[in-house]
Amino acid sequence: MEKIQLFCPATIANLSCGFDVFGLCLDTIGDEMILRKTAEKGIRITQITGANLPLEPQKNVAGVAAMALLEEINPGFGFEIEIHKKIKAGSGIGSSAASAAGAVLGINELLGRPFSRKELVRFAMKGEALASGSEHADNVAPALLGGFTLIRGYNPLDIIKIESPPELFATVIHPQIELKTSEMRAVLEPMVPLKNAITQWGNFGGLIAGLYTNDYDLIQRSLHDEIIEPLRGKFIPNFELIKKSAMENGALGAGISGSGPSVFALSKGFHTAQKVAQAIQDAYKDTGIPFEIHVSKINAEGIKIID
Amino acid sequence: MEKIQLFCPATIANLSCGFDVFGLCLDTIGDEMILRKTAEKGIRITQITGANLPLEPQKNVAGVAAMALLEEINPGFGFEIEIHKKIKAGSGIGSSAASAAGAVLGINELLGRPFSRKELVRFAMKGEALASGSEHADNVAPALLGGFTLIRGYNPLDIIKIESPPELFATVIHPQIELKTSEMRAVLEPMVPLKNAITQWGNFGGLIAGLYTNDYDLIQRSLHDEIIEPLRGKFIPNFELIKKSAMENGALGAGISGSGPSVFALSKGFHTAQKVAQAIQDAYKDTGIPFEIHVSKINAEGIKIID
Repeated sequence: MEKIQLFCPATIANLSCGFDVFGLCLDTIGDEMILRKTAEKGIRITQITGANLPLEPQKNVAGVAAMALLEEINPGFGFEIEIHKKIKAGSGIGSSAASAAGAVLGINELLGRPFSRKELVRFAMKGEALASGSEHADNVAPALLGGFTLIRGYNPLDIIKIESPPELFATVIHPQIELKTSEMRAVLEPMVPLKNAITQWGNFGGLIAGLYTNDYDLIQRSLHDEIIEPLRGKFIPNFELIKKSAMENGALGAGISGSGPSVFALSKGFHTAQKVAQAIQDAYKDTGIPFEIHVSKINAEGIKIID
Repeated sequence: MEKIQLFCPATIANLSCGFDVFGLCLDTIGDEMILRKTAEKGIRITQITGANLPLEPQKNVAGVAAMALLEEINPGFGFEIEIHKKIKAGSGIGSSAASAAGAVLGINELLGRPFSRKELVRFAMKGEALASGSEHADNVAPALLGGFTLIRGYNPLDIIKIESPPELFATVIHPQIELKTSEMRAVLEPMVPLKNAITQWGNFGGLIAGLYTNDYDLIQRSLHDEIIEPLRGKFIPNFELIKKSAMENGALGAGISGSGPSVFALSKGFHTAQKVAQAIQDAYKDTGIPFEIHVSKINAEGIKIID
């Protein structure tokens, strides 16, 4: 194989009670990437459309992730990368993760798959470190593996994939304002009440149990965040309005996607997810803030090989 | 049915990362209770062996739980309760819970089962409130339902039963010292680092996932407690020695049972759980502190009707 074309999906990290450890993979929102083997060694980014991002590999998340992989495997050839961005940078649905994960998955395929998708996560994390300053896996893991992913721990990296219940759909609204991940980190409190932490792990346990048993009611009862959302929600314009619209129209839960500004809702069934999208759209259009809205099933497999 | 005889099992609450929300039911350690219908209305405790506990129903956890049930259903008759304690009070393996749960389950059976086992939890919690001052369910839920139980929340009460992987066994050591639940509550810090809380819910998610998938390695990787154990472990004589003996002999994990002083270890297979028991016994006998040790499979059904 000399060339590969990929669909690199958007992802939702945190998911209410799963702050910093949980994520899911979306299906209809994503970038396209094309990777080619080249006689010349190393990584070249030849084209980026849809976003104004650096072509120098060492300044680009895809380039950094790709180079991390090539530090472990040194083939006698190199790779060209084309990135066609559809996921907006800073949207909170894993734009940098899609590029980092796509680069390492594409190279891995062109090398004859020396690594499993789970093993690729640690290379993709190097790209995330460039984007956000920390090697986190909560977007690259679902992008690579699909479904829901739990990052149980980082030392050593321990990733558990959980299949999505079949009727689960996500609605995502992206209010087009800028929120810096670093600033959204700064609003967190370093100490939290034990009482709230207990509630959070009770809910997180409930969410995991609900996913394993396809218990949509339990998923609904568990999708709460007592710790992060009260601090960050106020930075997202009309967050409470979005959430109220989602819940009143049958969503199982709603919360901040990653560190925002996107807001997600999960629903049982495509019809409900569509209805939730319509309700959010109707509620949000009066705010004057431009926004995009997406409805997607949960992507079971992660990055897809198109060609 | 005029009379019922029950085996009322001991339980382990908290289970490392599942502090305040998780518990399991033991199989070979438990009390016996006999309940009989009487022409006279109300509750009478006619006999208690194995412990020095009050016979007045309103001062006895079994009596209080039974009376809570009878507040909702008022049959034209009453009940006599005999309690034969095998679980020592203050051992940290749900002695009061066994009595409270046994009383309500026995009465429910004699009434023709108007409530499900899950519905009985709230009556049994009234007994727990007498014993510890708080209406907690983390022992009465596993005693009534068996397996592992997650108390996702209390408002409203939301209990999820999780079946145990088939090869899971518990080893429990009870160092015979007195620790007051109220004092063990007092050593907790009301605020905890967010970082540790995240680790805890990552581990708890991993534990739940490991139980659903019978993944003993994942259960092992998840059985940690970064928040409570460092504060409470020091009050249990030679806690680190017990834990080290367990882990060095193949246990999946070990921690404080309830608020102590009992310490549990979980192992894959009866043989390993026995070996862990032997190692703990060998290590502990030099401390001069009297102790009991038990090995038990996980009880899948909870309280058993013997006759």
